[in-house]
Amino acid sequence: MTLIYPGSFDPVTTGHIDIAQRGAKLADRLIIAVLDNPNKKTLFTVAERVELLKDAFKSDIKIEVDSFSGLLAEYAVIRGANAILRGLRSPTDFESEARYAAYNKMLTGAEPHLDGIDTIYLPASPHLAFISSSIVREVAAHTPDINGNNVISSMITPVARVALIEKFGRMK
Amino acid sequence: MTLIYPGSFDPVTTGHIDIAQRGAKLADRLIIAVLDNPNKKTLFTVAERVELLKDAFKSDIKIEVDSFSGLLAEYAVIRGANAILRGLRSPTDFESEARYAAYNKMLTGAEPHLDGIDTIYLPASPHLAFISSSIVREVAAHTPDINGNNVISSMITPVARVALIEKFGRMK
Amino acid sequence: MTLIYPGSFDPVTTGHIDIAQRGAKLADRLIIAVLDNPNKKTLFTVAERVELLKDAFKSDIKIEVDSFSGLLAEYAVIRGANAILRGLRSPTDFESEARYAAYNKMLTGAEPHLDGIDTIYLPASPHLAFISSSIVREVAAHTPDINGNNVISSMITPVARVALIEKFGRMK
Amino acid sequence: MTLIYPGSFDPVTTGHIDIAQRGAKLADRLIIAVLDNPNKKTLFTVAERVELLKDAFKSDIKIEVDSFSGLLAEYAVIRGANAILRGLRSPTDFESEARYAAYNKMLTGAEPHLDGIDTIYLPASPHLAFISSSIVREVAAHTPDINGNNVISSMITPVARVALIEKFGRMK
Amino acid sequence: MTLIYPGSFDPVTTGHIDIAQRGAKLADRLIIAVLDNPNKKTLFTVAERVELLKDAFKSDIKIEVDSFSGLLAEYAVIRGANAILRGLRSPTDFESEARYAAYNKMLTGAEPHLDGIDTIYLPASPHLAFISSSIVREVAAHTPDINGNNVISSMITPVARVALIEKFGRMK
Amino acid sequence: MTLIYPGSFDPVTTGHIDIAQRGAKLADRLIIAVLDNPNKKTLFTVAERVELLKDAFKSDIKIEVDSFSGLLAEYAVIRGANAILRGLRSPTDFESEARYAAYNKMLTGAEPHLDGIDTIYLPASPHLAFISSSIVREVAAHTPDINGNNVISSMITPVARVALIEKFGRMK
Repeated sequence: MTLIYPGSFDPVTTGHIDIAQRGAKLADRLIIAVLDNPNKKTLFTVAERVELLKDAFKSDIKIEVDSFSGLLAEYAVIRGANAILRGLRSPTDFESEARYAAYNKMLTGAEPHLDGIDTIYLPASPHLAFISSSIVREVAAHTPDINGNNVISSMITPVARVALIEKFGRMK
Repeated sequence: MTLIYPGSFDPVTTGHIDIAQRGAKLADRLIIAVLDNPNKKTLFTVAERVELLKDAFKSDIKIEVDSFSGLLAEYAVIRGANAILRGLRSPTDFESEARYAAYNKMLTGAEPHLDGIDTIYLPASPHLAFISSSIVREVAAHTPDINGNNVISSMITPVARVALIEKFGRMK
Repeated sequence: MTLIYPGSFDPVTTGHIDIAQRGAKLADRLIIAVLDNPNKKTLFTVAERVELLKDAFKSDIKIEVDSFSGLLAEYAVIRGANAILRGLRSPTDFESEARYAAYNKMLTGAEPHLDGIDTIYLPASPHLAFISSSIVREVAAHTPDINGNNVISSMITPVARVALIEKFGRMK
Repeated sequence: MTLIYPGSFDPVTTGHIDIAQRGAKLADRLIIAVLDNPNKKTLFTVAERVELLKDAFKSDIKIEVDSFSGLLAEYAVIRGANAILRGLRSPTDFESEARYAAYNKMLTGAEPHLDGIDTIYLPASPHLAFISSSIVREVAAHTPDINGNNVISSMITPVARVALIEKFGRMK
Repeated sequence: MTLIYPGSFDPVTTGHIDIAQRGAKLADRLIIAVLDNPNKKTLFTVAERVELLKDAFKSDIKIEVDSFSGLLAEYAVIRGANAILRGLRSPTDFESEARYAAYNKMLTGAEPHLDGIDTIYLPASPHLAFISSSIVREVAAHTPDINGNNVISSMITPVARVALIEKFGRMK
Repeated sequence: MTLIYPGSFDPVTTGHIDIAQRGAKLADRLIIAVLDNPNKKTLFTVAERVELLKDAFKSDIKIEVDSFSGLLAEYAVIRGANAILRGLRSPTDFESEARYAAYNKMLTGAEPHLDGIDTIYLPASPHLAFISSSIVREVAAHTPDINGNNVISSMITPVARVALIEKFGRMK
C-alpha cells in the first residue's frame, strides 16, 4: 500500500516526523509530498523544505520525499497512491480535513463517493499535539540565541535548527 | 497489514459497511470485532450481531467477523493487528476517539506513545454520516410496516431488516 | 407557515419561551410538541409539562401546545408542519441536531434529501444560552427555600416555580 | 415572511442553491444578497456574481437577487426582512454565525436581544456539505479541461461553468 | 486566594494531581471537594475517594481535601472560595463547563453575571489529557495482573493502585 | 499573585473589561499587555490602544497597562508573572488557546510541561460573549452617526467611542 502525506512542512517538525513514521509502519511506501503553492508565502523554499525532510528520513527506506504543484488529487493519482495520510490534532482540524477528504475522493473517483482515493487520519501523539511549524517559526524569529533554546530542539531536527538560524540570521 | 474494526454493530448499518469496505481496500485483512459487553444493553445478542455482519460481508474474502470481550487492546495484540480502524462522523467523535487511541497505544506499547498499536480513522462518507444504529433502532421500534419503509432499507441490509421486524414483532 | 417545536420541556424554561416566541414571529402557527417517551424518566408527567407550557403561552394566539409519542417525523406530517424548529445553544448541539434533521427529512420525503420536512434553527439568546431544564431541576432539588431564589425565578415562569415547590415538597 | 440570504457567492454553488430553495419554501420571498465588500478580493465581480445567481434562480418567482454594501443589518431593515437565513455546514460554522446573529439582532432592535431581526439556520444537506466556492475556484484554477470535469459539473450551474472557463482562460 | 477544585475523583488520577498542583501554585489554599452524589453510582465510596486524595497530597500544606453534597455553589460560599477551579481537556469539555460556570456565578451573586463566584480553567497538560478515572476503572476491571501494568502505574498513585486491586479482587 | 492579560485590544471592549476586572479580583496585580506586532495591521497604534486601556481602568489600582513586542513568554518571565490570563468565548477558542498555553509553559520552564508559566482561562460572561474588537471596528466603519448608536455604546467605553469617531472621520 502506498500512502501520500501532503503538507507545507515549513519546516518539518517532530510532530510531522511522528505522523510519517507511524504511517510508514502501516504502508509499503510513504511519499511525503511538499506542496509548491506560489500563492502562499513560506519561510523556506520548496527545495529547502524537501532537503530538511530528506535529512529527517534519510535512514527510513520506506519513506520518499517529493514535491508537487496543482491539485493534490491529480498528484495522488499519478503516484498511484492508495490513500492520503493526514495527522489530526483537534476536532476543528477534522472539520476542514473531512471536506478535503470528500472532495479529493470525488475528484479521483469514476462515481462520486464510491471509488476515489480515500484519506486516512492518525491522531497526533498527545505530547506533540501542540507543535506546529508556525510556532517553530515564531519562536525562531524572536529568540536570538536559538542554539541554546531547548524548546526549539525538541520541536525540530538538528539540521532544521541550523537552517532556521541561518534563515533568521540572513533576515535580521 | 491487518486492521481491526471494533464496535457494537447493533445492528450493522450501511455506514459501518462503507467504513469496513474502504478499510479492507487498504489492508490485507480486516477483522470486524463485535464488542461483547455484558454491562451494555443491546437490541441484538452478540451472536445475532455477528450473524448480520457475516451476511453483509459474505462475499468479501478479506473481511473476517469476530467478537471479543474485555479490553480491545488485549484483543488487538492477540489477533496481531497492525492498527485499529474507526470511522469519524463529526468533530466531537474525534475528541473521545483520540483519547481511546492514546490509551490503546499506551496499553499495547513497551514505551508509552512510542510503539503501541495505532488507531487510524476514515471520515464517514458525507451521504452516510447521519446514519447510526440508534437511529435505525428508533425508526424500527416505532414504524409498524417496516417492510415498506425506504429509509430503513437504505440504512441496513435486507437480512438485518428481516431481523429487526422479527425482533420488534417479538417485543410488541 | 406552520412550525413544530418539539422537546421534553421538563419543565419549560425562559430559554424555551424565548425560542418559541421568536419562532412564532416567523410563522403563522407554532405547535409546541411535548415528547411522550415512556423510556425516559422525567420529573413532570406529560400532562403537567403541557399545562406549564399552556400557562406560559396562554396570551399568544399563534402558539398551540400539544404532545406526541412515537416518531417526530410522523407527527410532523400529520400536523401539516412546514418545518421543525429547534434552538441551538452550542456547536455540539448542532452536531447531534444535524443528524436528526437529515433523518427527519429522509423519513418525510419521497426522495431522500429532496422534499422532506426541514429543520430550522434559532441560536439561543446569549444571556439565556446556559439555561436548561436539567439545571432548573438540580437547583430546585437542592434549595429548600425556592421561593426566594432569584435564579430560579429568572429561569422559569411563576407557575412552574410553584409546581417545582410542590413536586420537591412531595418527594422529600 | 421575507428572508434575506446574504453571502459572497463567488461563485454560487449547488450548496447555495440547495439552501436558497429550501429557504424559499418556508418564505413568501427570499432575497439573495451579494455582499459588495471592496476590501475582500473575489474572483468574480459583484455584477458577475449577481448574474450567475439570477441565472440559477430565473424560474423561481419567490427568489430575488440583489447586492448590498455596508452593514447587513442596515440592509435587512431597509428591505423589510423578517429574518436572515444562513446555511450551517459544521459546528465551527455555528460558532462564528451565532456571534453575527447576536450582533445583527442587537443592531436592529430597539432593546438589545429583544426585538431585532433574527437569523435562522438550515443545516447543509449531507451530500452537499463539503462543497464551497473556494473548492470550486481551486479546482477550476488547476484543471485545464474543465468542461469534462464531472466534479465541477456537480458543484455549479452550467452557466457558472462557462464563466469559470472564461475567467481562468483570461487569467492564464 | 482560596480555590475549590470539585469533582468525582473516582479514583484520583495523575491528571487530577497535575491540575491541583498547578492550581495550588496560584492560590493560598486549594480545597479539593469530592462530590457526594447518592444518585451517581461510583466505584469508590466518598470516604475512600477522600482517603486516596489525602494520601496523594499529604505533603502539600496548601491543599485540603473535603467532600460536599448538594449544590457546589452553596458549598463554595460556605467555604469562602474566591473561585472554582476546573481542568479542561477538550473543546467539548468547555461547552458544558461554561454553562456550569455561568450558573454557579448566578447562584452566588447578588446581581446576575456581576458579583458571583467565578470559575477558572487550567488546560490539561498535553501528555495527561487522555487520562480519566473511567479509563482507569476500565483497565483495572479487565486486567488481572494489575500490579505489573505500567499503564495503570502512570495514571494513578501507588496507594490508589492497591485500592483498585482490592476493589476488583473483592468484586470478582 | 501577578497575572498578565495579553491581547491586541484594538480597541478595548466591554468584553475585555469584564475579563480584566474578574481576573483582577483573583490576583494581587493584573498587567494588561498590548501586543506590539509590526506584522499585524491594526486600526489604533500601540500608544492609542494603551491610552484607551489606561482610561478604562484608571480607577482600579490593581490593574497596570503595558505593551510588549516579541514573545509573550519572555515578557511574562521579565514581569514576574505567575500566570497568563485569557478569556474563552467558545470551544474553538480553546483549541488554539490550549496550544499556546502548552507552548508558553514549555518556553518558560526548565523541564517541559513541569514548571513553566501556566495560562488560566475565564469564560466570557454570556451576555458579552459575542462582542469583539473586529465587530466594533466593522460597525464603526459603516455607521456615520456613531454617537447615537447604542450598540457601540454598550460595547466600548465613552472615550473609545470618541476615538473611533475621530479615527473614521480622519479616514473618510
